[in-house]
Amino acid sequence: MPIRVTVWGENVHDQENDVVKGIYPNGMHNTIADFLRKDPEIICKTAILQQEEHGLTEEILEATDVLTWWGHCAHKQVVDEVVNRVQQRILQGMGLIVLHSGHFSKIFGKMLGTTCSLQWREAGETERVWVCNPGHPITKGIKRYFEVPQSEMYGEPFQVPTPEENIFISWFEGGEVFRSGLTYKRGNGKIFYFSPGHETYPIYHQEDIQMVITNAVKWCRPEGDNWFDKFDGKPTDPVIKIDIKGPRLHGDGQSGLR
Amino acid sequence: MPIRVTVWGENVHDQENDVVKGIYPNGMHNTIADFLRKDPEIICKTAILQQEEHGLTEEILEATDVLTWWGHCAHKQVVDEVVNRVQQRILQGMGLIVLHSGHFSKIFGKMLGTTCSLQWREAGETERVWVCNPGHPITKGIKRYFEVPQSEMYGEPFQVPTPEENIFISWFEGGEVFRSGLTYKRGNGKIFYFSPGHETYPIYHQEDIQMVITNAVKWCRPEGDNWFDKFDGKPTDPVIKIDIKGPRLHGDGQSGLR
Amino acid sequence: MPIRVTVWGENVHDQENDVVKGIYPNGMHNTIADFLRKDPEIICKTAILQQEEHGLTEEILEATDVLTWWGHCAHKQVVDEVVNRVQQRILQGMGLIVLHSGHFSKIFGKMLGTTCSLQWREAGETERVWVCNPGHPITKGIKRYFEVPQSEMYGEPFQVPTPEENIFISWFEGGEVFRSGLTYKRGNGKIFYFSPGHETYPIYHQEDIQMVITNAVKWCRPEGDNWFDKFDGKPTDPVIKIDIKGPRLHGDGQSGLR
Amino acid sequence: MPIRVTVWGENVHDQENDVVKGIYPNGMHNTIADFLRKDPEIICKTAILQQEEHGLTEEILEATDVLTWWGHCAHKQVVDEVVNRVQQRILQGMGLIVLHSGHFSKIFGKMLGTTCSLQWREAGETERVWVCNPGHPITKGIKRYFEVPQSEMYGEPFQVPTPEENIFISWFEGGEVFRSGLTYKRGNGKIFYFSPGHETYPIYHQEDIQMVITNAVKWCRPEGDNWFDKFDGKPTDPVIKIDIKGPRLHGDGQSGLR
Repeated sequence: MPIRVTVWGENVHDQENDVVKGIYPNGMHNTIADFLRKDPEIICKTAILQQEEHGLTEEILEATDVLTWWGHCAHKQVVDEVVNRVQQRILQGMGLIVLHSGHFSKIFGKMLGTTCSLQWREAGETERVWVCNPGHPITKGIKRYFEVPQSEMYGEPFQVPTPEENIFISWFEGGEVFRSGLTYKRGNGKIFYFSPGHETYPIYHQEDIQMVITNAVKWCRPEGDNWFDKFDGKPTDPVIKIDIKGPRLHGDGQSGLR
Repeated sequence: MPIRVTVWGENVHDQENDVVKGIYPNGMHNTIADFLRKDPEIICKTAILQQEEHGLTEEILEATDVLTWWGHCAHKQVVDEVVNRVQQRILQGMGLIVLHSGHFSKIFGKMLGTTCSLQWREAGETERVWVCNPGHPITKGIKRYFEVPQSEMYGEPFQVPTPEENIFISWFEGGEVFRSGLTYKRGNGKIFYFSPGHETYPIYHQEDIQMVITNAVKWCRPEGDNWFDKFDGKPTDPVIKIDIKGPRLHGDGQSGLR
Repeated sequence: MPIRVTVWGENVHDQENDVVKGIYPNGMHNTIADFLRKDPEIICKTAILQQEEHGLTEEILEATDVLTWWGHCAHKQVVDEVVNRVQQRILQGMGLIVLHSGHFSKIFGKMLGTTCSLQWREAGETERVWVCNPGHPITKGIKRYFEVPQSEMYGEPFQVPTPEENIFISWFEGGEVFRSGLTYKRGNGKIFYFSPGHETYPIYHQEDIQMVITNAVKWCRPEGDNWFDKFDGKPTDPVIKIDIKGPRLHGDGQSGLR
Repeated sequence: MPIRVTVWGENVHDQENDVVKGIYPNGMHNTIADFLRKDPEIICKTAILQQEEHGLTEEILEATDVLTWWGHCAHKQVVDEVVNRVQQRILQGMGLIVLHSGHFSKIFGKMLGTTCSLQWREAGETERVWVCNPGHPITKGIKRYFEVPQSEMYGEPFQVPTPEENIFISWFEGGEVFRSGLTYKRGNGKIFYFSPGHETYPIYHQEDIQMVITNAVKWCRPEGDNWFDKFDGKPTDPVIKIDIKGPRLHGDGQSGLR
């Protein structure tokens, strides 16, 4: 069974900024989708902010196994209804890969419950990405480390909960460090955050980067059944017959409160 | 230094339902505050939904070390601005104790990123609360287990992230089980969820329950400095002098995007 | 690619106790291997305590993707050399499924670092096993719960570290609860502990139990490359050329200490 | 109540190596004990490898709230009986601080279940230690980072389980990174690993380092009651009266197996 990926792009700097347009003439989302499609296991569509419902309708999300998310300057334009819908789908089992400045996206903050803030500097310095678990499927094909010749510095403290696993840590020329690859599980969905990917450098054209994101897609594909939240307000029948004792708030057949 | 607690109460059923009024004539928040005040280390105030800003102004939150939260039928009436403010204060270091039906409160869902749904039944059945770590400060004074003679059943699956530690698990007469005491850390703040506490039974008058909540207040008091989120949009200077290379999105002195 | 499973059995009560012989005439390990073999993805061998090196030579472990472990009365007869070898293989990526009384096995304690002690009672009482994550691959095909009609009670406190995920929690007729299905990751290896399986009851003949263990085999198969521990004592060359400063403990070419 | 610390030192290079003797004329353990004693909350003793039972008798461990551990060339000389005793005391609630080359100590490996291997280089290069949670009690008084002017490089991959919290990450002049401050909880005991501390550099004379270790002592002091492992082999009586059904392995009054 192929893995059905939806690559979501904010698609603003890609349209408005000449540097970004030069590097990603078809938009960053198309560059990402194109390299993912090279893998025979992956089927890939794109969706962008400017589409109706940001291209993330119920039908599309239901047919998505893994969603990748890149956004930077327009996080606040993503409507809450779509964010909530994406959250529900992740809890059911859809994988989520959050890229670079997506650390401040509504969906990442919503899933993690923290500000996800960090330190930054746009100086085109070298970033060296170190592997913390050389056996992890996300690091398959990666040597002990790889370098991003020009990168935006993202530095600690990174305000996120303790991850399930810390996959990469980055070293920066200017002196900082950053937890650049982190995994989480929420409900039945796997989440991977990967920090390299500033739009004014050709980072998504780099082979190591493409390999990591392709690996991550495979790692966070759904692996069980969907977990549908069964709370419909109805009380559950006891397994063992018991008599109702004491006063009740809810009348017979009355629903619970949410 | 005393621990400054704010006990937050929804205070709706306490005013409107005769059974609840009979058990908690001054409201559940006052019952909780009263037993906490018996501990010489604790200073305690209350706040309720019906107050301006739900009684949780910036000044009050700044002067709060631990916030306890009970709500049931009016979660949606809590305004988002106050929820966001409480979140910021937790990330800084304030402790949060979420009680019973507070599993569906906006603040609990916001901190955990999941639906926090569960199974339920209001039948006044026996709940037996088992201790999973007999050395944990929250279980101090509690034997291997204690019983709640009449309780609302809360049952698995409980859709929450894996906790830092599972403190209590409950057994129900009708046949279910539930993770009834869970700890989390988000940012610099400690969170404790404790499920017993249905309003139509005198649960907060019970000595074991009072002991657990008092212990939990002590456990989740701030233990370090406040963690103030330092993201002000400004780039950070390198530790090691580097030359800026390559194109930039941000002009000199321009702020980062959030 | 098939999953290569080695089912390890202590094989003592299976030989010496008439009740156990009646239920498992070919030994418990063969019953377990037989139901695993029904799955077309699984290839299965057995190994027992009484074989040379307990049937767990380097060659056999290298050719094992998932090892299941059942032991009860002879944990101390398992030699440390074999336990260390199994640990190394798990850290590389081999899955480990520890069954029932294997909680006191040398290998489980070695991987977790705690005593793994618990409460127990052999009364043939009903155990009801509840699902905590209905979307997890280990729970595939299992309804909200299943029952073990006659089971040995295992009760909290269970002295183990916080798991990666709590998959099952059990309810017992006599009044206790137990975390009966737990997952861990150590190095690159996945570990699943599953508590039902007392030898005087026909538990491994039960369909739900077989389904869980079969699911668990698939879940804990290796999913990345092997993580070979690269510590050979040799210092690592710097990525960036630096001059050696200050005094040294190690002479040129001298190895590090382990 | 004062915190009773036992500083354990291997005390081999301190006696045999002229460089180390020059930096730590009374042994590293005495330097560590001396700066800890400056804190009015702390009472501090030392213990060394060469003493009977390595200075860690049952009486001494019972009177120890926090144990610090430094060892390098003689890990294998520490007898297993003492290691097991230390483990039991940690599970009860004693804090453990493992320093530098103690990553390969028997006690650290025993508590974590992994090899704890890493990359290394003794070149006297600069290490910059970054704070990941600026509100954590262990980072109290520490700025965004501090530097160790001459340090031994410890680099990823560090084969340890995911920590409860990642407190520090280090940047090295030669190009590597390392998770240099990690917390764990096992049983009722808190564990802190802190990597700076190579014996040929005056690292334990550095104020920031002393501050971190002093903070860590306070953080990992016991905070609940001792958790005594209650497994004595005896079965537990049911809470609810049940009839014994089915065959049994154990006769009346017979003990469980460990």
